[in-house]
Amino acid sequence: MKLWEKGYKLDQLVETFMTGDDPTLDHALISYDCLGSMAHAKMLEKIGILDAEECSQLTEELKRIIQAAEEGKFTIHPDDEDIHTAVENALIQKLGTLGKKIHTARSRNDQVLLDLRLYSRDWTLAIMDTVLEVCAELCRFAERYQSVPIPGRTHFQRAMPSSLGLWAGAFAESLLDDLELMKTAYWLNDQCPLGSAASYGVSIEIDRQLSSELLGFRTVQNNVLYANNSRGKFESVILNALVQVMNDLSKVCTDIIIFSAPEFAYLSLPEKFCPGSSLMPQKRNPCPLELIRAKSATVQGMLFQVLEITRGLPSGYHRDFQETKRPLMQGFEVTLTSLQVFAQIFSGLHVNEDKCLKAFSSDLFATDKVLTLVKQGSPFRDAYQDVSMNLHHVNNEDPVANILSKTHIGATGNLGIHTNNLKIEEYQSWTTHQKEKWTDIKRHLQQK
Amino acid sequence: MKLWEKGYKLDQLVETFMTGDDPTLDHALISYDCLGSMAHAKMLEKIGILDAEECSQLTEELKRIIQAAEEGKFTIHPDDEDIHTAVENALIQKLGTLGKKIHTARSRNDQVLLDLRLYSRDWTLAIMDTVLEVCAELCRFAERYQSVPIPGRTHFQRAMPSSLGLWAGAFAESLLDDLELMKTAYWLNDQCPLGSAASYGVSIEIDRQLSSELLGFRTVQNNVLYANNSRGKFESVILNALVQVMNDLSKVCTDIIIFSAPEFAYLSLPEKFCPGSSLMPQKRNPCPLELIRAKSATVQGMLFQVLEITRGLPSGYHRDFQETKRPLMQGFEVTLTSLQVFAQIFSGLHVNEDKCLKAFSSDLFATDKVLTLVKQGSPFRDAYQDVSMNLHHVNNEDPVANILSKTHIGATGNLGIHTNNLKIEEYQSWTTHQKEKWTDIKRHLQQK
Amino acid sequence: MKLWEKGYKLDQLVETFMTGDDPTLDHALISYDCLGSMAHAKMLEKIGILDAEECSQLTEELKRIIQAAEEGKFTIHPDDEDIHTAVENALIQKLGTLGKKIHTARSRNDQVLLDLRLYSRDWTLAIMDTVLEVCAELCRFAERYQSVPIPGRTHFQRAMPSSLGLWAGAFAESLLDDLELMKTAYWLNDQCPLGSAASYGVSIEIDRQLSSELLGFRTVQNNVLYANNSRGKFESVILNALVQVMNDLSKVCTDIIIFSAPEFAYLSLPEKFCPGSSLMPQKRNPCPLELIRAKSATVQGMLFQVLEITRGLPSGYHRDFQETKRPLMQGFEVTLTSLQVFAQIFSGLHVNEDKCLKAFSSDLFATDKVLTLVKQGSPFRDAYQDVSMNLHHVNNEDPVANILSKTHIGATGNLGIHTNNLKIEEYQSWTTHQKEKWTDIKRHLQQK
Amino acid sequence: MKLWEKGYKLDQLVETFMTGDDPTLDHALISYDCLGSMAHAKMLEKIGILDAEECSQLTEELKRIIQAAEEGKFTIHPDDEDIHTAVENALIQKLGTLGKKIHTARSRNDQVLLDLRLYSRDWTLAIMDTVLEVCAELCRFAERYQSVPIPGRTHFQRAMPSSLGLWAGAFAESLLDDLELMKTAYWLNDQCPLGSAASYGVSIEIDRQLSSELLGFRTVQNNVLYANNSRGKFESVILNALVQVMNDLSKVCTDIIIFSAPEFAYLSLPEKFCPGSSLMPQKRNPCPLELIRAKSATVQGMLFQVLEITRGLPSGYHRDFQETKRPLMQGFEVTLTSLQVFAQIFSGLHVNEDKCLKAFSSDLFATDKVLTLVKQGSPFRDAYQDVSMNLHHVNNEDPVANILSKTHIGATGNLGIHTNNLKIEEYQSWTTHQKEKWTDIKRHLQQK
Repeated sequence: MKLWEKGYKLDQLVETFMTGDDPTLDHALISYDCLGSMAHAKMLEKIGILDAEECSQLTEELKRIIQAAEEGKFTIHPDDEDIHTAVENALIQKLGTLGKKIHTARSRNDQVLLDLRLYSRDWTLAIMDTVLEVCAELCRFAERYQSVPIPGRTHFQRAMPSSLGLWAGAFAESLLDDLELMKTAYWLNDQCPLGSAASYGVSIEIDRQLSSELLGFRTVQNNVLYANNSRGKFESVILNALVQVMNDLSKVCTDIIIFSAPEFAYLSLPEKFCPGSSLMPQKRNPCPLELIRAKSATVQGMLFQVLEITRGLPSGYHRDFQETKRPLMQGFEVTLTSLQVFAQIFSGLHVNEDKCLKAFSSDLFATDKVLTLVKQGSPFRDAYQDVSMNLHHVNNEDPVANILSKTHIGATGNLGIHTNNLKIEEYQSWTTHQKEKWTDIKRHLQQK
Repeated sequence: MKLWEKGYKLDQLVETFMTGDDPTLDHALISYDCLGSMAHAKMLEKIGILDAEECSQLTEELKRIIQAAEEGKFTIHPDDEDIHTAVENALIQKLGTLGKKIHTARSRNDQVLLDLRLYSRDWTLAIMDTVLEVCAELCRFAERYQSVPIPGRTHFQRAMPSSLGLWAGAFAESLLDDLELMKTAYWLNDQCPLGSAASYGVSIEIDRQLSSELLGFRTVQNNVLYANNSRGKFESVILNALVQVMNDLSKVCTDIIIFSAPEFAYLSLPEKFCPGSSLMPQKRNPCPLELIRAKSATVQGMLFQVLEITRGLPSGYHRDFQETKRPLMQGFEVTLTSLQVFAQIFSGLHVNEDKCLKAFSSDLFATDKVLTLVKQGSPFRDAYQDVSMNLHHVNNEDPVANILSKTHIGATGNLGIHTNNLKIEEYQSWTTHQKEKWTDIKRHLQQK
Repeated sequence: MKLWEKGYKLDQLVETFMTGDDPTLDHALISYDCLGSMAHAKMLEKIGILDAEECSQLTEELKRIIQAAEEGKFTIHPDDEDIHTAVENALIQKLGTLGKKIHTARSRNDQVLLDLRLYSRDWTLAIMDTVLEVCAELCRFAERYQSVPIPGRTHFQRAMPSSLGLWAGAFAESLLDDLELMKTAYWLNDQCPLGSAASYGVSIEIDRQLSSELLGFRTVQNNVLYANNSRGKFESVILNALVQVMNDLSKVCTDIIIFSAPEFAYLSLPEKFCPGSSLMPQKRNPCPLELIRAKSATVQGMLFQVLEITRGLPSGYHRDFQETKRPLMQGFEVTLTSLQVFAQIFSGLHVNEDKCLKAFSSDLFATDKVLTLVKQGSPFRDAYQDVSMNLHHVNNEDPVANILSKTHIGATGNLGIHTNNLKIEEYQSWTTHQKEKWTDIKRHLQQK
Repeated sequence: MKLWEKGYKLDQLVETFMTGDDPTLDHALISYDCLGSMAHAKMLEKIGILDAEECSQLTEELKRIIQAAEEGKFTIHPDDEDIHTAVENALIQKLGTLGKKIHTARSRNDQVLLDLRLYSRDWTLAIMDTVLEVCAELCRFAERYQSVPIPGRTHFQRAMPSSLGLWAGAFAESLLDDLELMKTAYWLNDQCPLGSAASYGVSIEIDRQLSSELLGFRTVQNNVLYANNSRGKFESVILNALVQVMNDLSKVCTDIIIFSAPEFAYLSLPEKFCPGSSLMPQKRNPCPLELIRAKSATVQGMLFQVLEITRGLPSGYHRDFQETKRPLMQGFEVTLTSLQVFAQIFSGLHVNEDKCLKAFSSDLFATDKVLTLVKQGSPFRDAYQDVSMNLHHVNNEDPVANILSKTHIGATGNLGIHTNNLKIEEYQSWTTHQKEKWTDIKRHLQQK
């Protein structure tokens, strides 16, 4: 039974098309939908639509649904269309007339907005925590291998001495910057849409501030039309942050694929990460790294799907928005799994120090030679020309001494890992605080 | 058991990540994989790797797998990684040593290329057939309502007299043009990759021409490296054709959403296509049309995902390509369902002729007035200025007479539906021919 | 003369291809390049590469170049490749040997990073200021027309009473949220890359902290490889913020195009914003609004271009990055112009209050009727069903009274414009502070 | 003076915004606009709107404009908005009242459609010709170096013996497939929109068939609304074909960048294609190849932009379409230049045969060993396992003998270059035929 049913049935083909994979996707929203309804019930009690007993009964039943869902015993029938319908129907079946009151002063529009915000809250924090683990792993690696030199490249050509430490540290810092994008996405998402209804509010004096506080939001999302206009928009802001995380992983994976090819061999991937070939017996392929790289394009495709669905629509709710749910959810899942897989593989990387050392040749020291001439008084451009014309006079140096001797900020001899570790701790304490707050909120909501 | 297993096991997390949804997606490939193996076996017999009895036994067993799959009794275990492994393992389990011969002179790389080409062959033809049905429906509508005038618009402003016939005919012609893109995609896809192996051919004198003919391909895809380089490329060519089909649907759906809004009301959608609102009792929403429009963005996102995965890679196979399988398959499915749903809804549209007529006002005839002055001898630009300055002198005309009086090629009084119907027939006879040929091929392959 | 020339010349076709439109684009970077060199010179003085007199002479000459550029007298010859070369060559021409010292301990890689960060600093602030002007204009409009009701829509169908105030306020709040994205982009961009050189630092003990402070950056971008890896990345973060701004404009423009069509006519666009048709004398088209909408797709295309160039590359500088300069610059310009044009048009909009009032019909009050029954004690779902079955009993109400009576947070009777205005002021004081700081920095840099 | 001016002026800011870079872009359309007007005039003569003398005078004047444009003496003033206005104004200035007749029975909508189709005709053929030159170059290279072995790779790991011939041939075949996409785009584009006017035809009995034949089109684009609905659509079909060409170039350039890095060194790029570094004296960078790769993302961004502008719009002309002109034009230009630069560089590549030979090691022959065992009677999977467990028993072979011994279709010993050359000739004769036909058409149009 649909919430809007009133004497006619939908065409079967069309109904199946519209339901799509919502019943599947919506399983991830069951607990959020119930928590939202608990807050809504408490607010309805406050303004006198429900009495205390009614509110308590609804809360109790909603708790039962959450528990049933956790035990895999609450399913969304395709005929129920979506989670909102499934829950309201369950409440009516169990509580009769009381169940018919829960939808007072709200619409499925603000309900799905709310569910997705709570869902995104959890997932954003989970992604941030996993990014932090990867950062910590990268920093550990950078510290351990700060004295292992590798040829630095530009244009895929050999350029100047670099180090495994510099290389790993670069990605730690890039991911730390991404966390600020995640935090901004979290901040944006942290607005309570409840009560915006179908974009035009309701003619009952609801207390939106209370709903927002009960659900632990930073603020009410004020303008009720904006609440619905922001569907798709917030999703795209989140996906953009995920894209940045995935693109960092794509770059580091591409580097590892290159560094572990036999022509380089700076790194080796343990066998357990490397499937073989059905035809070629000698192959050990860096498949998971290639897949992470490909999935960065997948998340990018999702960002564009969401941006595009949203871009051309006039104000207000349109069914088009339903099609933004899947890319948001899959974007979170793909990113989280990619981070976990990357962490697993990265922590198992084997470094071939001898190969790194053997990879050096005199051309990599040409620039250092130029700067030595500069320190001896030659104007830079003259020194550059001088060395250019006499490249055969550039000698091989000790690469380890070379990289450690460069000690200005951020150079191979001064990676600043300590500062990165401090940043990691700061973000960790921020996510911990958010998670604790959210746990308290959930406990409080489930109290009658 | 993986095909490449040789004494080590994969990390569990990494293995799950890599398998992804391949076992699910690959269900759609079972019969194609078996048909490919039948052709491969026949070729191996021809060159003496198998004897006639062996070839016959393999064919028989592969037929059984196809049948089991049709009955839902053949499943791909996650541990099997993919369909290719599942089938080879099944053959070995049933036929022992004989099963171990089937993979001679091929790789999973050319096998998956082949499977996807056979799969795409079927789906491309199915899409084309459904596009043709929609075209036929649009032409019927255009003919039936060729005398029903509506205000034509540019810039969403009212411009000149148009008609429902002109409107529907425009989409028939647009979809007919898309069919040529589908046909080109089919033509490209109609190349046999079998024998390209891992991109570098094999050191056995295989007969690629025979394999190609047995599988009904237009031609062998010659260069063995190109075969693998074309992974993702052919997918993107197919998806581009699908994008054009979906964008046509997006435009016609947007038009219907507008035309059926109360401010226009030229068309009505039967209730059975219109879900209501959980909050607003009076609502009947054109949800399926909005979803089709949104899904046009989804397919566009898939095109970009595939293009991007492909664009940056060096030559040869990379695991990244696995990530192009899902968007191809979903692109086909989304497009087919959208076409079917659109056909269902469009054939149920109700035309409100009186609303169409009432929508006319004198401004719509200003341009006709200009051209009347031109016919009376006034230079166009003078006539234009004259009417501009005297818009209040432009009179309302009979819109039906007006649209029927415009009889140059392609105008409201000369829609050319007959020509469109002839084109539809031509394409239909082409797809019928391809399907019959393919049916013959399949029957022939399954003969021992 | 190229900076890297050493005895060979480039192929002419290839050289032209590579130079591309850099000399044109780089004109926008002249002053930033010179300011960067001033800071660099001061740092070189501090560490003893230059003496005080040399630093002073370089500063003086760089000031002259800035001034010449302002007067249109400094041009970048195609043979100079880019702005960095043009400036170094000019310094050498004027100052001889001294000019040859300026490039000590830096590369064009960190120079272009720096120039783009300073450039982006100015443009981000300019965009933010213009967004704030548009927000203020939207708030003024919302306040002025808060009592003008219009039918609110969902699914492009008529839903519930809304108001012009609610509508305009929605966009003010959406743009205010975008400002937070702009601010995060600014924060990310506010890191000094100078001294990262070609990604691997330099073998001279440079003082990166000093360079950063002289240029007014929040912090040094620590890891020297990350500095180069962030090319393209920061650009895409900025473009993503611009995309959100443009998508807001796209939505509001689409609304105005609809609202000003004769079937609605809530708004009129003054003639001065509406070109006509070459053929149809009565037309007044909302062209600039359509172009802004289209340009939102353009900026999205630019974001996609930059993300994609960046996604697939291994670590370190690649010439591919040059291709991210144009989309960044054009993204800024398109967004700024679109905002300015929108502000101009929006402030000239004419409201047709009578058309707004006449657009109301009883169906728009059905939901309010349901909630009235709820207030009288009926459970919501029963009331909903009741009204559904008796839609003909829903009466037309006074729309003005209706919208003003809805006074919960963010509803038509409680728009919260005051809060928005406070936010606008807060952001304004932030941008003002940044601009003042930057002005001080520029003055200080130009002192000898 | 605008064509639609009638007593009011546009706001200056808005006017500048709308004109944008049209006057610049439209320079490329001058001759096409004039040729279109010549055909239109001849048609107007045929139906009696113009007399023979008038038609002749208009033709003469239009010829003069084409010639002036070729000499750089015809400019489009921003005040003229676009090329259509500039030409009509020029005709009126020169011919008075006669000039005012040229716009009879057409709109700028069908005029710009026509101009872009004629423009695209020339550019499509130019791109095809250049693709064919690149194909021929690749085939020559493949033939010359068919005996030069290189390690073939999958997953960027070393896989099996390949050859420079196989590698180059792969791209020749890929580009030949792209030509079929170009041809389909050409076929779609080869429809005459003239007479569709503002999407709704005209109330004069024009002869659209005649116009179409005079301009050498394959057919009239029948439905007048479809003509305008196809704006953006045909552009995206063309851009999709260009994307495929660019993606092929991206892949081959990426390969060359890798193959010319010192760790591989199979190929060397002459100095004249390799800029250096401003800092590192030893660098020779493959910049033009990197730029081509980046520009493949640029063209992809353009495709996305055009698809997106088009996707969401209702039927009929919208000003949004103006924003599709630039990406189409730039897409053609970027692709043509990239092809030319690639051809130049590729023809100058130096092959280091000794490096290719030295790159071989025994693991590359493991698969051949497996197949040798198969030929000796071992079932494939057993042979595979056998070799897997005894990789140290796989011996190095003579790579040249190895690659030449693989002679099945498309393998290293049987590249099929002759067949590719035949295809090249076929396409060449097709483009030659089209160009000759078009030259005849142009000559005929300019006759009085």
